[in-house]
Formats: sequence, structure tokens, C-alpha cells
Amino acid sequence: MDLTHFDETGRARMVDVSAKEETDREAVARGKIIMKQETLERIRMGQIAKGDVLAVAQVAGIMGAKQTSQLIPMCHPLAITGAKLSFDFEEPDGISIEARVKVSGKTGVEMEALTAVSIAALTIYDMCKAIDKTMTIQEIYLAEKRGGKSGHFIRG
Amino acid sequence: MDLTHFDETGRARMVDVSAKEETDREAVARGKIIMKQETLERIRMGQIAKGDVLAVAQVAGIMGAKQTSQLIPMCHPLAITGAKLSFDFEEPDGISIEARVKVSGKTGVEMEALTAVSIAALTIYDMCKAIDKTMTIQEIYLAEKRGGKSGHFIRG
Amino acid sequence: MDLTHFDETGRARMVDVSAKEETDREAVARGKIIMKQETLERIRMGQIAKGDVLAVAQVAGIMGAKQTSQLIPMCHPLAITGAKLSFDFEEPDGISIEARVKVSGKTGVEMEALTAVSIAALTIYDMCKAIDKTMTIQEIYLAEKRGGKSGHFIRG
Amino acid sequence: MDLTHFDETGRARMVDVSAKEETDREAVARGKIIMKQETLERIRMGQIAKGDVLAVAQVAGIMGAKQTSQLIPMCHPLAITGAKLSFDFEEPDGISIEARVKVSGKTGVEMEALTAVSIAALTIYDMCKAIDKTMTIQEIYLAEKRGGKSGHFIRG
Amino acid sequence: MDLTHFDETGRARMVDVSAKEETDREAVARGKIIMKQETLERIRMGQIAKGDVLAVAQVAGIMGAKQTSQLIPMCHPLAITGAKLSFDFEEPDGISIEARVKVSGKTGVEMEALTAVSIAALTIYDMCKAIDKTMTIQEIYLAEKRGGKSGHFIRG
Amino acid sequence: MDLTHFDETGRARMVDVSAKEETDREAVARGKIIMKQETLERIRMGQIAKGDVLAVAQVAGIMGAKQTSQLIPMCHPLAITGAKLSFDFEEPDGISIEARVKVSGKTGVEMEALTAVSIAALTIYDMCKAIDKTMTIQEIYLAEKRGGKSGHFIRG
Repeated sequence: MDLTHFDETGRARMVDVSAKEETDREAVARGKIIMKQETLERIRMGQIAKGDVLAVAQVAGIMGAKQTSQLIPMCHPLAITGAKLSFDFEEPDGISIEARVKVSGKTGVEMEALTAVSIAALTIYDMCKAIDKTMTIQEIYLAEKRGGKSGHFIRG
Repeated sequence: MDLTHFDETGRARMVDVSAKEETDREAVARGKIIMKQETLERIRMGQIAKGDVLAVAQVAGIMGAKQTSQLIPMCHPLAITGAKLSFDFEEPDGISIEARVKVSGKTGVEMEALTAVSIAALTIYDMCKAIDKTMTIQEIYLAEKRGGKSGHFIRG
Repeated sequence: MDLTHFDETGRARMVDVSAKEETDREAVARGKIIMKQETLERIRMGQIAKGDVLAVAQVAGIMGAKQTSQLIPMCHPLAITGAKLSFDFEEPDGISIEARVKVSGKTGVEMEALTAVSIAALTIYDMCKAIDKTMTIQEIYLAEKRGGKSGHFIRG
Repeated sequence: MDLTHFDETGRARMVDVSAKEETDREAVARGKIIMKQETLERIRMGQIAKGDVLAVAQVAGIMGAKQTSQLIPMCHPLAITGAKLSFDFEEPDGISIEARVKVSGKTGVEMEALTAVSIAALTIYDMCKAIDKTMTIQEIYLAEKRGGKSGHFIRG
Repeated sequence: MDLTHFDETGRARMVDVSAKEETDREAVARGKIIMKQETLERIRMGQIAKGDVLAVAQVAGIMGAKQTSQLIPMCHPLAITGAKLSFDFEEPDGISIEARVKVSGKTGVEMEALTAVSIAALTIYDMCKAIDKTMTIQEIYLAEKRGGKSGHFIRG
Repeated sequence: MDLTHFDETGRARMVDVSAKEETDREAVARGKIIMKQETLERIRMGQIAKGDVLAVAQVAGIMGAKQTSQLIPMCHPLAITGAKLSFDFEEPDGISIEARVKVSGKTGVEMEALTAVSIAALTIYDMCKAIDKTMTIQEIYLAEKRGGKSGHFIRG
């Protein structure tokens, strides 16, 4: 079982996908950030009053998806055709993040979805770190992937 | 307890640190990525034979630290003065990542260290995803922080 | 009448254009910058002698068009297939700027053309600000747009 | 009266500020975007209900300020120490934008403030263009500048 | 014989390739870096022991290929479909670098391949400059190019 | 003799310069590009007529200097305080390029100067490649370096 990202001499490369079919592809990634209960409460209040942390994290996640190939060395540049993020409060102390990214291309957008979740989580951390330094980013994983030769993957 | 990243009308802002002292600062962040045992084995073999996943992740993490202020919306641009990453195999199925970042500046480098860990973890995911789609990024947190008014923080 | 850039919960998203047709598209944007008459005179002299402000603004505008999706959060990344800028002196105190951008893609290049004009205007400002701090950027708008489902738009 | 951005042979250069004093500097820029009354109404509703256009524009403006030296060719890279944007509804059809940027540095942040306003205006355009293609960006100018040898400038 | 990168008024532009055919294209570029014999020896030792300069240069070259259109003003953005670099020791004092880049697009990837070689060479310089300031980058050229209307080019 | 860019386990790192003195530093790099005589003639004509290749290369080189730390993995981000490029025709078939970059910082700007020369040379290549595919970039090296503990270096 070989890592396709290396050539026969062991050097890293961007895998050649020239011969792959251009198809509609979609990936869904998830993650969460755990924090003090009062930090969660403060973020929730911002939703209904002033200072919406998640609105900033949303923008950061989507912009992050677009920077993926500049961040992950062997990742192909892709003209993504759609991206959205959603957040859910997980009582009493967590926020779950889901990113859904689409492309019509020769390779998938798993990394774009995972990067969007990661950058959104880091942004929540940044905006709350003055009141809570002990937040932890947890369980970032690929939840689903459609399109391409490998077919439909759903994490069990 | 206020979120400093919002002004009095509830709009996000980059906090004004003009009046803060320029001091030597350091931050240490940690995280890990959990995978199938055979994926871990494959990465370890790359260390001693061909195809070193962690060498690529190392470069990606350090470059990621330098892009932090372009990724995290309210983060100050900082001319970091040093950055390093280390990886440890955690038997039987995990790799832990530690990033240590330094700066002489008016604000800290927590986000740079956390971003370095996140991008390194995402890079490991990218390079191994052809053989393992079920990897999970776990427990990214700030481990330590020195310098600045808030003093020395060590996560308990 | 809905803003398509928000989902049903009110969160910003990059609109899903996966199902849209890939067609040839073009957009033309215009703007101007007003300045002291002697500043205009100085720029004009650079055209024929030394120090061509508009040559620098031209390059900046074209490079700006290519960075559009990194600047405008919900903008799709697009592989533009052509971009040009032109400048006209508007006596006695203005320079008008026109950008024309093309793409073969699933969505239009209005933002690329508007960004090119904006960055070119800002560059003129930057290069002349030592002699004129009162320049004003004016009337940046979409002049024309072809291709895609919404058809040919010409600003009246 | 010379344009400092050119050398003696007429070639553009980044002005040498090595010998300038590092001082606290601040710049304020303003601009506006004019639109149909119903577009303005739609944006205002987003403020109190779902779909906050200005929250996205705010983030874009601040991130734009940080990319200034990558966009404006002869602009010095600066580690800005603070940035904020505010928006005001100007009845019946305009939104005014103000950006305030700070730095401790050898040169000013006029371009950062002007870029923040420009990118925020472009983002409003992008998010509303599906319902209004005739918006116009207007009157972007430097309103105020403090610090450095040239002293306090207030546009009359 | 005209330079296509200028319009009829002499202004630089990004050439309009909208009407060109989308075909599979490939470019190969080469270059080398000359250094002291002991520097070469030190790099070679890193290959088999600790501190692999070429592993870092490899990653930098591939990431550089992806940034080409952000660096070269009139270069079209392209979603490259593959990139690899190889290095060879040229006794007694040189390292040759070859980059091979692919795309399915309307224009070629010569600049991407040349940029990859250049950034890889600069990275070797950076990592060895503490022990050898006299390294010289030499003979960067396009070796081969396939696809597109101009056909197969091989440098004689 | 050790490569400082690696830690004791052989992993690449950004060297810690926190303890280094902040001083005025300057670096000068040179390079050239060799081409057909008619290509050189064509570029020279652009200087006096329409289509100034070197004006574009100048802007690209200066912007390239500012992107150095995003391109060269272990390079420190630096707020450069000045940058200029000059070009000389070397009869009958070459153009020499010189970049001069300054900073007040804890580490030098050799890489910024070398990157500026490289990007300027690549830009000349890009703009003339339609008429000459056999251009070669030659002899990029550090010519001079001032400031910092290692003192004044002039290449013999």
C-alpha cells in the first residue's frame, strides 16, 4: 500500500490527476471546540445581542477553504463551486462545526472542507482567548465524500 | 466579561495593541492525529526509508505559522522570530504534534502556534488520505505561553 | 427578494454554482480618481518622461483581479482568461480607469473587474500621496456584463 | 515636486524609510456605496434578522487592511496594531464606511485604511449584486492622519 | 514580431486566451545551483543522516508552482494537475533541479515549472547560506513543453 | 559546521533570532537573463516606444521581495523598509538585474534581494516567451550584505 504523494525515489510530489475525470464532487467535514460553560454562554449571547463570534468564524472558514492549496503542500488548486459552514451548540460546553464544499473537478475537496472547519475553530479560539485559554479543538474528521472514482464515502 | 474583539456596537475589530509593551513572547501548542495502525506504520517506515510524510508536514506547519494573520480575521500580523515543530509517535495509532513559536512583539503568538499544529495535522491527513480516510485530528490546545502582561500560562 | 449569499439560518455562504453552465463571460468596470491639477500634470509628465505612475497601477490592477477571491469573502475562485486596464485623463483633474476581465466559468467576473479598478485607483493614490493627500476615488461601478443566464447587462 | 516612488532613472521603487523614526501612527479613511432604496432596506433588515451583509464586509475590510502591502506595489509591509471599521446608513440609499488603522512604525497606514474601506465596499457590492447591479462606490478618501514627520492632517 | 503582453497603446495586459482550446499541457524546466564542495557534501550527508535540505526545497518548489500567477504579473491563474521536482548531485560542486508541471488548460505551464525551479534553488540557498554565501543559481531554462497550438518544444 | 536550519533531530525549523540585535541591514543581489539579440532589441524598443517589459518586471521584483517569507519555508517575515531594482542592457544579448533591499530587523534580507532578482527575471521570461523560448536565467548571487553580527560581506 503506497502513499501516492511520493515518487519512486521517495520525494514528495503533487499527484498527477491529469487523466482523471472531471466530475461533481462534494465533501463534508466536522469538528468541534470545547470550552468553559461561561465562554459558550458568552458566544451564544453574541448571537442575539452584540458581538457575533460565529459570524466571524463563518467568514474565516469559507476564506480558509479557498486558501487550502496555499496551505497544504501537495494539495491541488481547485476552483470550488460552493462552500458553507454551520455551527451547533452542544450543551453545556461545546460548539460543533460542519463544512460542506463542492467542486467540479478532477480531484476531491476533502482538504478544503477539513481546512474550513480547522480555520473556523481557530477563529473561535482567537476571538475568545482573552476570556478562556483552555479551549480545545476536537474530533476534526471527514464525514462524507461524493463523486470521483472512489465513490460515496460515509464515515461509519 | 467582555470579548475584546468587538467594539461597543458589537462589530468585530482587530484589538488595538498600540499601547502594549514590546516584549519577548513564546507560545507552545499541541495536538494529535489518530489513524489506523497500518497508516502509522507506513508513516514510520517513511522516516527510515522513502517518503517522509512528517518532513512535509513540518514545512507546512512552519509556513502555516507565517500565514496566521491572513487566515484568522482579527489576528495581528507579527514578524515571528522563530518556529519549530516536533512529532512523536504515540503507540499504537497516534502522532502528537508540538509547535513552539517566538516573537518580540506587542501581542502573543498563541494563534501562530495553534495554526502551525493545525496545518501540520491537515498535511498528514492529506498525504495519507489515499490509504486512510478515517483519520481524526484531536486535542489541539495551547500548552504554554510566556511574555506579555498576562504572564506565564501553563495548561494544567 | 433574497440575498443568495445567506443560507436559511442567515449564515453567509459561498453560493453553490455547481449546476450552472460553464460559459464565456466578460465584465467591464469603471471608476475614476480626482486630484489636484498639478498632480494630474505630474502623472501625465511621467508618461512621456520618467516615472510612469499608470504603468505601476496597471500591473497592480491586473494582479488585484487575480487576488479577488482571496479578498472578497463569498467570491468564487476563477481562472480568469484575460484582463486589461486602460486609463484616460479627464481634464483638468481626473483619471478614469476601465477594467475588462474575461473567464470561461460557471459564474461571472464582475468582482474581478471592480477589484482591478479599485486596486489601480488605490495604487495611483499611493504613488502620489506624498504630493497630494486630497485625492478622492469616485464612481466605481459595473459598466457591462456578458454571458451566463442573466444575459447582457449594460448600465444605462 | 517629485514623486518619491521613482528613482533618478524613472523606475518605480519602494521608498527607503530606514532612517525614519518609528512612531505611533493612525489613519482614518472614508467612503460610501450608493444603491437602490430597496437594497438598503434589505441590508438593514439583515442587521436585525437573518443575513448580515455588514458583518461580512467588516471582516473583509479588516483582512483587506492586512493584505495592503501585497496589493499595492510600492507599499511597505507594516505590522498594524489595530483596525476597525464602522458603517452608517445614509438615508435613503447609501451606506458610509469608515476605517481606522493604527501602527507603530516608520511609515503611515493611509493605504491600509483606504484599502479596508475599498474592500468593505466591494464586499457589500458582491453580496448584494444578485438584487442590484447598479450600486456605485463613491468618495473614498483619506480623512485624517496622525504621527510621523508630516504631522496631523485633517481633510477640510 | 510583437510582444503579446501589451495592448495597442503599449499597456501591459493579461493576454486573452478565452478562445484557446483546453488541452493537456506539460512543461519541464531545469536549473542548477553551484556551491563550495563542502556545502555540497553537507547537503548530501543530510540525505542519509539528519537535516535534509532537498526535502524542504522540494516542498517549496511545489508550493511555489502554485503561487506562480500571484508572482508573475501577466501570468494566467491555472489549476495545475500535477507537479514534481527532482534533484541531482553534479560532482563536485553543483545540484541540478528539474521541475515537471502539468495542467489541462487554455495556456501552458512554462512559468509554473520555471518558478518551481527558481524557488527550490532559492530555498537551497536560504538553508545553506550560514555556511556558504557564495552559492550561485545558474542556467534556469525551459527544457520542454507539450500541448497547445505551438506543439512540442524541446530545447536543443 | 552545522546547518542552523535543522534541530538536533534533523527536522527543519525557522532559526530562533529572538536574541539577535535589531540593526539596519541591507542586501544586494544580482542576476541576468540571456536571450536572442532580437529579443533584447525588442525589449529596448519598448523602453522608448510602447510596451515596457522592464517596467512590469520592476513591479514584479519589488512585490516578490515582499512575498519572500511566504515562498521560502524557513525565511523570517520581515517588514522591509526599502527595495529597488535596476536593469542594464549587456550587449548584445543579456539584461543584468540588481536588487537592493533594506530592513531594520533581527535578521538579514539576502533572501528578499535574491527573490526580487529571480521574480524580475521570470517576469521578463514570461513577457517575451511568445517570441523567444530559449532565454536562460543566469548567475543569481548575493553581491553584498551589510549589518548584523557577521558584518560587511562583498562577493570577491
